[in-house]
Amino acid sequence: MPNPAVPALARRPLLAALSLALAIAGPVAAQSPAPRADTLSSPVQARGMDEIIKASAPTDWRTPEAGDTLYVELENGRVVIELAPDFAPEHVANIRALARGRYWDGLSINRSHDNFVVQWGDAAGEDGDRKPLGEAREKLPAEFVRQADGLDFHRLPDPDGWAPQVGFVDGFPAARHPGAGTAWLAHCYGMVGAGRGMEADSSNGTELYVVTGQSPRQLDRNITLVGRVLHGIERLSALPRGTGALGFYETAQERTPIRAIRLASDVPDAERTHLEVMRTDTPLFDELVEARRNRRDAWYKTPAGHIDLCNVPVPVRMASKDGARGE
Amino acid sequence: MPNPAVPALARRPLLAALSLALAIAGPVAAQSPAPRADTLSSPVQARGMDEIIKASAPTDWRTPEAGDTLYVELENGRVVIELAPDFAPEHVANIRALARGRYWDGLSINRSHDNFVVQWGDAAGEDGDRKPLGEAREKLPAEFVRQADGLDFHRLPDPDGWAPQVGFVDGFPAARHPGAGTAWLAHCYGMVGAGRGMEADSSNGTELYVVTGQSPRQLDRNITLVGRVLHGIERLSALPRGTGALGFYETAQERTPIRAIRLASDVPDAERTHLEVMRTDTPLFDELVEARRNRRDAWYKTPAGHIDLCNVPVPVRMASKDGARGE
Repeated sequence: MPNPAVPALARRPLLAALSLALAIAGPVAAQSPAPRADTLSSPVQARGMDEIIKASAPTDWRTPEAGDTLYVELENGRVVIELAPDFAPEHVANIRALARGRYWDGLSINRSHDNFVVQWGDAAGEDGDRKPLGEAREKLPAEFVRQADGLDFHRLPDPDGWAPQVGFVDGFPAARHPGAGTAWLAHCYGMVGAGRGMEADSSNGTELYVVTGQSPRQLDRNITLVGRVLHGIERLSALPRGTGALGFYETAQERTPIRAIRLASDVPDAERTHLEVMRTDTPLFDELVEARRNRRDAWYKTPAGHIDLCNVPVPVRMASKDGARGE
Repeated sequence: MPNPAVPALARRPLLAALSLALAIAGPVAAQSPAPRADTLSSPVQARGMDEIIKASAPTDWRTPEAGDTLYVELENGRVVIELAPDFAPEHVANIRALARGRYWDGLSINRSHDNFVVQWGDAAGEDGDRKPLGEAREKLPAEFVRQADGLDFHRLPDPDGWAPQVGFVDGFPAARHPGAGTAWLAHCYGMVGAGRGMEADSSNGTELYVVTGQSPRQLDRNITLVGRVLHGIERLSALPRGTGALGFYETAQERTPIRAIRLASDVPDAERTHLEVMRTDTPLFDELVEARRNRRDAWYKTPAGHIDLCNVPVPVRMASKDGARGE
C-alpha cells in the first residue's frame, strides 16, 4: 500500500521508547508501504505531512494517464511506473511499442548495485542472441534536456548545488537553467532511466534502470530519464545485490524474471492499480514542502530550514471513494 | 569485498552495449561489493577514481582502531562499523559496554524502512520484558553536536543546503557552523545512529539504525550519530522491507536474528576483517573529490562541476601485503 500518511508522531505498543526515535523521525519515502499508525495529539500549530494529506481535497490529487503508466509484473507483485512523455517523448513512445510487443516478457532484472540502481533488460551480451525489438526503434535521439518553455515548473525555495533551479513538474523532480532556457528531470530515488552506451544517442529504452540509492545527480543531463516509480519500489530496492562487477548478477539463477511489462491502458480496468499522485502545483503541496523543510513536531530539536529536491516526498495513494477501488 | 575500485570505463562481455550505460556511470557506493573489472584505456588526461586508488601510497590509507570497530554478526555474514568517539564519546563508551556484555546477542533487526533506515535492538515493547543493560548506562547525554575546535575538518569545495560548511573528519561525513563553533556528523548512506525517544537525552545506544536510503539530513543535529558502516552494508540494505508502520516487521519470524555484536578488539586477530579506509585529509583524496565533481571519462557529456557531501565515496579496502590478509 503506498500510503504515505505516516504520522509525525507515531507509537506502537510493541516498540521500546528508544525505537520511537525513528518512528518519530518519519519516512522520507512517499512510496513507503507503511500503513497509517495511531497518532498522538500534536502540541504544535503547523500541520505535519499526515495532517496535510488528511486535509487534502480531491482536486489536490491527479490520476496518471493509463497510457503513460507502465506495470512491471514480477513474481512477487507489480511495480508501477509513471512515464514522462513531456521530457522524453521519443523514449516513451518506444517504451510503449516495446511493451505492446511484449519485448520484456521473459527477460529479467540483471543488476542490483547497492546504493545506486536496479536495471533490467536483455541479459544476452553484445555479441549474443539479442531479443528482437519488433516495432520499436533501435536508436533514439538523446533526450537529456528540453526547452523550459511550456513546462509548468513549480520551483522549490531552497538552493541546489547541481542546478540553478529545482522543483517539480507534474510530480516529477526536475531542474531548470534559466540562462540556457533548458529543463531536465533529476536523478532522485525511484526515478527511471534508459541505459545507454558511449554515444549520447545510443539508448532505446530496452534497458531501464531505477535509482535505489543516494540520488546520483551527476547523471542529470547525461542520460535520458523516462519516468518515476509510483508504487512497489521495495520489490526492486530490496533485491539481493549482484556480486559481479557493478552489481550485475553473475549467474542466470540470480536474476529476477520479468513476467510481463504492460501499459496500464492495455490491461483490463479491473486489473489495474488505481493510483493518485499529489499535485505539486498547489498551495497544499507548498505547505507540505514547508512542513518538511521545518519539522514542527516535538521530536525535532533543530528544524533544518532547508530541503533538498530529492528529500521532498510526492505522496501517492490508492484511489478510493470516487475513483473507487483498492488493489 | 569492499573494493571500491570500479573503473570509470568498464566492459563485461556479457553486457549489452546499452547496459554499458550505468556500468560507465559507475558506482556511488564506496562499500560496493563490485570487484575490479577490466579497464579500457582512458582517452582523457585527468585520473578517474580507479586510477587514483591504484596510484595511492600506503600512507594514503589508515587502519581503524580495533577498539573503535564493531562487528555485527548475522547469519549471512558480518557488517563492520567504525565508531566515532570524537563525536559521540559517551555513546561509543556505552556501545563498547553493551558489546562486551553481549547485550545484542540473540536480539534482532526489527525494522527495514524503504529509502530510510534499518534498525536493530530489543523488540520487546516499552512495557515488555526488556533485556537488562548490564554494565551499560540507561541514559546518556545528547551528542548531537560538538565543539569544532580540535577537529581536523577537511572541507569540501561545494556549498551545502543543510549546513554552512561540509567535509570529512577522519573519513566521516561532517558539517560545521563557524559562527556557532560547532561540528556534527551528517546523515549519509551507511551512517549509524542511536535511536531515541522524545527527549534529546533518551538514547543509550541499544537501538542502532543505519541509513539505507537518500540521505535524511534533516536528522542532523537531532539525534546522535555514532559511526559508519565500512563493510557489508548490503547485508542490511537488501533486507526485505517491513510491512508494519514505519517499516517495522510485523512478526517475529520476519526479523533477522543477530548472532552477536562484538568489538574487533575482543575478537581474535585471525577472525578479524582487516580493513583500510582512505584518508580524507590528503592531496590524493582532494583529487578523488575533484574526479567525482567532474567526471572526465568519455561517457559523461556534461560534468556536474559539483558534488554533494553524501555523494562523495570514501574508499574502503581489505588490508593486503603489508597488513597482510583477506577475509
